[in-house]
Amino acid sequence: MTAYDDSNVFARILRGELPAIKIYEDDSTFAFMDIMPRSDGHCLVIPKAPSRNILDIAPEDLAATMATAQRLARAAMQAFSADGVTIQNFCESAGGQVVFHTHVHVLPRYEGVALRPHTGDMADQDMLQEQADKMKAALAGA
Amino acid sequence: MTAYDDSNVFARILRGELPAIKIYEDDSTFAFMDIMPRSDGHCLVIPKAPSRNILDIAPEDLAATMATAQRLARAAMQAFSADGVTIQNFCESAGGQVVFHTHVHVLPRYEGVALRPHTGDMADQDMLQEQADKMKAALAGA
Repeated sequence: MTAYDDSNVFARILRGELPAIKIYEDDSTFAFMDIMPRSDGHCLVIPKAPSRNILDIAPEDLAATMATAQRLARAAMQAFSADGVTIQNFCESAGGQVVFHTHVHVLPRYEGVALRPHTGDMADQDMLQEQADKMKAALAGA
Repeated sequence: MTAYDDSNVFARILRGELPAIKIYEDDSTFAFMDIMPRSDGHCLVIPKAPSRNILDIAPEDLAATMATAQRLARAAMQAFSADGVTIQNFCESAGGQVVFHTHVHVLPRYEGVALRPHTGDMADQDMLQEQADKMKAALAGA
């Protein structure tokens, strides 16, 4: 497998070189809003430790990443009155991966609403910040 | 959230009341072929302990389920010469969930090949058994 390359955008976010609309952080994971959301409230969890994807991630980092994804899923149900959640993880280009630092998508879902296609358009930053604030409030109350 | 109902098909598989084409089993997880595969080698991991989905699963069961998903992902890359893997988990009907026992999809992916739509058609059982045998061999060698 291709080695981890720390010039990817998520590694740069972790180093503070690029901005992110943060939701949550603990010793081993970091969660933030997806700037090209496929559903309202679409967020991402990444492990802080470097790994390319599920093929090379340390099991403890995978466990921590999923524990944070679980927290986000529960918070999203409350923050957005979501009806469900879809969790996705893409591994290698053929698997749908675009950024090569392990990341898990947490997609709040709403009855009768399909996931939006990837358009490459960035969402309004103020709206994303509002959603992040709702998620933080839900996490704090959980 | 709706309570766990142990009449679902995965609970029945775990109790031996329904057959499954088994790939792997440990103390806390069970893995088998999806009988309506959306990609060649599509398999599923379930925790043995009852839970409806990511909203109510115990963190240790989620960690174990993902550790098994990781093993399957690595094995699938070898068993099927896959180019990538897509991991999916659906929570509640709005999130895409059909069977209400937590399960993680491990979908081997191939360059230029889209996931097949859900058709409801069952795949040939001999072919699925052959794929399971390839997965078992890859897991044994890993």
